[in-house]
Amino acid sequence: MIAKELFDPKSIVVVGASDNRSKPGGKVLYNLIENNFEGEIFAVNPKRVDLDGIKYYSTVEDLPFVDLAIIAIPAELCLQTCEVLALQKKTKAFIIFSAGFSEVGNFELENKLRELIQSVNGVLIGPNCIGSIQKKYKGVFTSPIPTYYDEGCELISSSGATAVFIMEAAITIGLKFSNIYSIGNGLQCGAEEILEHMDESFVEGQSSKIKLLYLEQIRNPFKFLKHASSLISKGCKIAAIKSGISEEGSRAASSHTGALASSDIVVRALFKKCGIVYCSSREELISVAGVFQTNEIKGKNFAVITHAGGSAVMLTDTLTTNGLNVPSIDSEKTKDLLKKLHHGSSVSNPFDFLATGTAEHLGEIIDFCENETLFDAMVVVFGSPGLFNVKDVYLCLLEKMKTCKKPIFTVLPSVINAKNEIEFFLSKGKINFSDEVVLGHALANVYSAKNNYLRNKIQLTAMDFAGIRNIINASDNQWLQNKEINELMQAAGIELPFSVEIKEEKEISLFYTKFAFPLVMKVQGVVHKTEVNGVRFPIQSENEMLLHFKDLMQIQGATSVLIQPFLKGEELYCGAIKQGDFGHLVLAGLGGVFLELLHDTSGALAPIDKEEAKEMLTKLKAYPIIKGYRNKKGINEESYIDLITRLAALVYVVPEIEEIDLNPIIATEDKLYPVDIRIRIQ
Amino acid sequence: MIAKELFDPKSIVVVGASDNRSKPGGKVLYNLIENNFEGEIFAVNPKRVDLDGIKYYSTVEDLPFVDLAIIAIPAELCLQTCEVLALQKKTKAFIIFSAGFSEVGNFELENKLRELIQSVNGVLIGPNCIGSIQKKYKGVFTSPIPTYYDEGCELISSSGATAVFIMEAAITIGLKFSNIYSIGNGLQCGAEEILEHMDESFVEGQSSKIKLLYLEQIRNPFKFLKHASSLISKGCKIAAIKSGISEEGSRAASSHTGALASSDIVVRALFKKCGIVYCSSREELISVAGVFQTNEIKGKNFAVITHAGGSAVMLTDTLTTNGLNVPSIDSEKTKDLLKKLHHGSSVSNPFDFLATGTAEHLGEIIDFCENETLFDAMVVVFGSPGLFNVKDVYLCLLEKMKTCKKPIFTVLPSVINAKNEIEFFLSKGKINFSDEVVLGHALANVYSAKNNYLRNKIQLTAMDFAGIRNIINASDNQWLQNKEINELMQAAGIELPFSVEIKEEKEISLFYTKFAFPLVMKVQGVVHKTEVNGVRFPIQSENEMLLHFKDLMQIQGATSVLIQPFLKGEELYCGAIKQGDFGHLVLAGLGGVFLELLHDTSGALAPIDKEEAKEMLTKLKAYPIIKGYRNKKGINEESYIDLITRLAALVYVVPEIEEIDLNPIIATEDKLYPVDIRIRIQ
Repeated sequence: MIAKELFDPKSIVVVGASDNRSKPGGKVLYNLIENNFEGEIFAVNPKRVDLDGIKYYSTVEDLPFVDLAIIAIPAELCLQTCEVLALQKKTKAFIIFSAGFSEVGNFELENKLRELIQSVNGVLIGPNCIGSIQKKYKGVFTSPIPTYYDEGCELISSSGATAVFIMEAAITIGLKFSNIYSIGNGLQCGAEEILEHMDESFVEGQSSKIKLLYLEQIRNPFKFLKHASSLISKGCKIAAIKSGISEEGSRAASSHTGALASSDIVVRALFKKCGIVYCSSREELISVAGVFQTNEIKGKNFAVITHAGGSAVMLTDTLTTNGLNVPSIDSEKTKDLLKKLHHGSSVSNPFDFLATGTAEHLGEIIDFCENETLFDAMVVVFGSPGLFNVKDVYLCLLEKMKTCKKPIFTVLPSVINAKNEIEFFLSKGKINFSDEVVLGHALANVYSAKNNYLRNKIQLTAMDFAGIRNIINASDNQWLQNKEINELMQAAGIELPFSVEIKEEKEISLFYTKFAFPLVMKVQGVVHKTEVNGVRFPIQSENEMLLHFKDLMQIQGATSVLIQPFLKGEELYCGAIKQGDFGHLVLAGLGGVFLELLHDTSGALAPIDKEEAKEMLTKLKAYPIIKGYRNKKGINEESYIDLITRLAALVYVVPEIEEIDLNPIIATEDKLYPVDIRIRIQ
Repeated sequence: MIAKELFDPKSIVVVGASDNRSKPGGKVLYNLIENNFEGEIFAVNPKRVDLDGIKYYSTVEDLPFVDLAIIAIPAELCLQTCEVLALQKKTKAFIIFSAGFSEVGNFELENKLRELIQSVNGVLIGPNCIGSIQKKYKGVFTSPIPTYYDEGCELISSSGATAVFIMEAAITIGLKFSNIYSIGNGLQCGAEEILEHMDESFVEGQSSKIKLLYLEQIRNPFKFLKHASSLISKGCKIAAIKSGISEEGSRAASSHTGALASSDIVVRALFKKCGIVYCSSREELISVAGVFQTNEIKGKNFAVITHAGGSAVMLTDTLTTNGLNVPSIDSEKTKDLLKKLHHGSSVSNPFDFLATGTAEHLGEIIDFCENETLFDAMVVVFGSPGLFNVKDVYLCLLEKMKTCKKPIFTVLPSVINAKNEIEFFLSKGKINFSDEVVLGHALANVYSAKNNYLRNKIQLTAMDFAGIRNIINASDNQWLQNKEINELMQAAGIELPFSVEIKEEKEISLFYTKFAFPLVMKVQGVVHKTEVNGVRFPIQSENEMLLHFKDLMQIQGATSVLIQPFLKGEELYCGAIKQGDFGHLVLAGLGGVFLELLHDTSGALAPIDKEEAKEMLTKLKAYPIIKGYRNKKGINEESYIDLITRLAALVYVVPEIEEIDLNPIIATEDKLYPVDIRIRIQ
């Protein structure tokens, strides 16, 4: 729980204060005063600071008790100052602007600070940040200070400058803000802790429902997931950038906020699990936020309404090639509407009411679309060629946005010709998506994130959990042995093909009658079997069995030989890899070239329910092979889904598993046979 | 050749003139007068128009001779008016604003207009357009009128409103313009004719080198290609949107400018052939134009320089995941530079000189990068948290952009905090890419378009062109017969496996000794052989041959049976489809699931040289199979490339070929055997 003094301090001290606006310790003071912080403001600096509305002290020792400290002094002085504040002045909330901590390798200093602040149950925003904006105070040394709206977006940013750049671009398109958190290095209070606070303090009808994140690191994925999921299940909408996805970008992030790398696929899987909209740029984040702020998209069928044909064509291309629809509408339905518009207008969706179209025409079209069940949402593109004022059109839009139940997204491209009218439009709390294609991508992005699979709501497939734990606890191998693997699979309810492990030649005659030829023989005790020619097939006779057994046992490390039926069918794959604190990433797909060459795998974080497993499969390029196509029958998809959920449940309850590979799984029409399994535990 | 009166008219008449600025016939008059057209201006309207600097006439009949007519009267009055102008008043250039022509199905009227204007060797811009901006006059009814720069971008747009929206957004980021052509329906003068004019009138050092296109249709792809290629070979840079790529978007384009659909893949192939940068949105087009305007990118290694870490991380992610490099630099090389910067700065690329970094620091870093051969170009991201004026930094940037040989791309995100400084920067003719990720995509897009394969420079592979023509002329079949196919392939130098066609059972005993078993037998006279079980393999004996022959000849339509060796190897594919006026799209790739399921084909417009054929293959997802991967040997890539260029040359010289399919082509390690070929001619 974050100390309440961060949100509602009765008093604030700026340490390193100044009356010079161009210094952080000055600018923040002016921001506090000019934005009417109602509590007491203290300023500390050896050099006198004279400003109306503040009390000056030359040292922190002289201060009275104070709730929140904003610190703008060199890194090496911070610890001592915070000690005085935390231990003597009852200060609970700290915002440290100063850089020079973990991002330059100074971990020790940052850790000491963190311990100090933990010890008093305090909270530390930063270091290496621009501060925080709250309803009660504006504790940043930057501008702009967005007008505070209770329902405005909350922003959490690893990077202070990026937070500023996001605000600047966002205000320009009409986005509203509430609380801003520049978390900097975020060691004591990161995005996870702020999400936790948002989650626990959420009040329906009062709390903001839009959260925007710019992150360079997710330190505690489970905590992140828990609270992001919870917020989304309460009706919140979250969009996030997690930068540093490339090797080079990750190098940059490390020297910026000391971030550690995590792979993009894992971050995407995490966001998918929560229902967070994944963004790659400030522009995308802001556009998605604009979609959030406008209204909820309930379906994928869009009406495109414009007086500018080119924009309608590009928008329609974008929507329909990204999973949304621009359905055409029967001319019988639109004939009355058409009569009300100028000759030459087109109403088959896109609705193009021509360059000469009026506000009244726009109103008629919007009313039509509002009442036509075919459509779930509308996009209106309306600019100005500069002939006349289009304020009446924007007034009409504002009126319709108030009365219509369906969301109306507005593209007002004439940033020069209709500058004043757009400013008027924005002043009414609305958004201008100035590029129709950028909006189209944001709409598709938001719509596709609607399907999420909240990890804390997934029921684990029933299996012999005690048995599983027993096998794992008893094992002292890094790579599990064949016997252990068989038992583990049995406990997990994953059926294996009948197989026999033999160690001595004489056993062959005992066992071979149990099988029908052809068979496959695999050397045991060796991890990469194929590379040492350790897999032999098809074995057609007892004689061949004997020959190959002798040969296989010659391989270095060979302990025994496994004999299985030689199965033919589609080769599938299912596996999981531990991704540090993110848990296990479960991957599924077809084997062979699909896996090795095309890397055509679907991934999701464990645990996985049947619905998500199904979605994983449908996302594969090779899905038609699973489903069957042309004259070729598919595989037993239900069994594959069942296997994926079992494997995901298994790794979820056995965090010791570092990696598990079922590859290949031979899929005949009715059954799945995992014929080679590797499991490594730590 | 476009009549010169369009570019340099001595006199202009506005028909349908007005003194009301909010009417097209009024606004254009003001635009002509206020932007100082030096020739005579006439105004025609039954209702008197009184304006300084114009001569009024109540009818066109009363006019003296006039070079250029701008027409803003109802569609149905246009033909008669143009007749008077063209036939009596020596008018050669016409700009028709009016809508109501082919876009609403009124083809007859538009055709008559076109014929009239052709008959006097005139030129018609429009109808259904906003007009044209030329150095000598501003003949549009819209605003803004961009300041005219000789070196500014030339813009051709199918959509008038889109041209306005592009100009508004472009001016905002600092793009310069010269001539603007709103071509409207473009029936008499389309993008092709304007490109032809640009090409033929191009003067090095005088003509603008940047061309931007927004097109809904390419009517004459060969003309388009010819002149776009030629311009690019003269050093011009072209970026283009071709909208209407989806079925729904194409429906929208049709009702907008009467455009006909062409598939996106063909348009991309055409752009690739010319070296045009393909764009999907106004924003992309403008960003690419900004890259063009900045400087030529000579290599793919970028230095990223910033005081704002987050932007550097996102930009680095974008560049490196889109084919460009952000190479790290050895600390030995940067140690002197590092000493000059604030403590904590990072110089391993990205160069992060911290929030407190100064103009001087920036200058040092830019000088370093300019002199460091590792880098080909720089991106500088510099905003402002609002503490102090950053004009000195932008002055430094301007200075360095003047002196540095390497291009410097500038992201100035602080559109609020540094509003005035950015305006100052733009006033010096520079660009502000306000979002680093949008810039990153534009850079990658421009860089990847550097490889182009100008169609008019490709040498056709030597082959028996006379023989080919002879076979085609002699054929009267839609689907070529086996014999014709064999002859055609021989003439084209495409080797086929040895095969025999037999019609009677008794022939089997004559031929079978020529083959080694196994064989394959295919029914002839039937197009879709596999669907009627018309392909039999492996045939292992004479007896089997006899049985299958009888059976195959029972199939409806069977005329004979083809016998070939049964070959094993990788299945490839090569084919071509006639794409209307675009010529043939040649496709290549692997067969089987790669073709049918993954649609993993590469396409290029014929003809194709070896270099382009090679690039086609490297773009395939399946390329590692062609190349060989892991322990698996590849195929004979040279032979595949040779086959593609031959097939492309064949279709190029035989425009009658509607489709040709070599599928499968069996590739052994050393050779390629096309074993099934279908050719349809029209």
